[in-house]
Amino acid sequence: MSRRDELIGSIGDLLRLQSGLALVLHQAVADQFGLNPTDLKCLDLAAREEALTAGRIADVTGMSTSAVTALLDRLEKRGFVERYRDAADRRKVYVRSTGQHEEKLAEIYGPLSDATDSVLRSFDVKSLDAVRDVLSQLADVSQAFIRRER
Amino acid sequence: MSRRDELIGSIGDLLRLQSGLALVLHQAVADQFGLNPTDLKCLDLAAREEALTAGRIADVTGMSTSAVTALLDRLEKRGFVERYRDAADRRKVYVRSTGQHEEKLAEIYGPLSDATDSVLRSFDVKSLDAVRDVLSQLADVSQAFIRRER
Repeated sequence: MSRRDELIGSIGDLLRLQSGLALVLHQAVADQFGLNPTDLKCLDLAAREEALTAGRIADVTGMSTSAVTALLDRLEKRGFVERYRDAADRRKVYVRSTGQHEEKLAEIYGPLSDATDSVLRSFDVKSLDAVRDVLSQLADVSQAFIRRER
Repeated sequence: MSRRDELIGSIGDLLRLQSGLALVLHQAVADQFGLNPTDLKCLDLAAREEALTAGRIADVTGMSTSAVTALLDRLEKRGFVERYRDAADRRKVYVRSTGQHEEKLAEIYGPLSDATDSVLRSFDVKSLDAVRDVLSQLADVSQAFIRRER
């Protein structure tokens, strides 16, 4: 096997490992909130997106709209999100984070983010360039795959 | 901001994106089996590990042993795994995959794996080397983080 093939094989293994670890990691963090990983993903969206709707959450997570409604009821009851109506069009309902979980999330993820930074700082610019390009192209591949699988 | 800091920032964003995509991707694939992502992760373990025990599954997924028992009951009922006793020590119970899901999984993940390979093939050996080193160190970071969060 060429050095090239060997590297491609190891990177494939590492990507699968990382993907499994992401799942376990999300689960561990969600457990701390007493939520499941999809709830947490939805909270993440609510914190980042303007004018977030239930439809958009269904799109991103691949959940049915009735499952999204149940999820939002659960999160609203626990004080993590609130629903509000569009001032111009009262029929439109949006979802926003109350901010309750952000502080705790930042606290939990802080050490991970610091450790990641210090790994990256030990590589030169040329290597980081390659990593950025590879990860960016792989994100496109994953997104295309998810769109097809749904 | 230096070129270096800029790259580190983008790579951090891409890693977070990839981690969210992994979650959605596992969900999409699990849906095709009528399973949840943790069930699927457990099946994955059963297919790869020799002498897999319920305790080992609890370790890797961070689930309680009673939750693992319920999960194994569910998977056994659906024909995905089977429990068997150690020939030498009849008190020891192991779990193995029946192989029912592997073929379907290979079918689903085949296109993703091919697309990933063709992205990687477009980079030179030096770049792939850097990517392998970064991913391998980041996997260590994630594993240390998961151990601490549990």
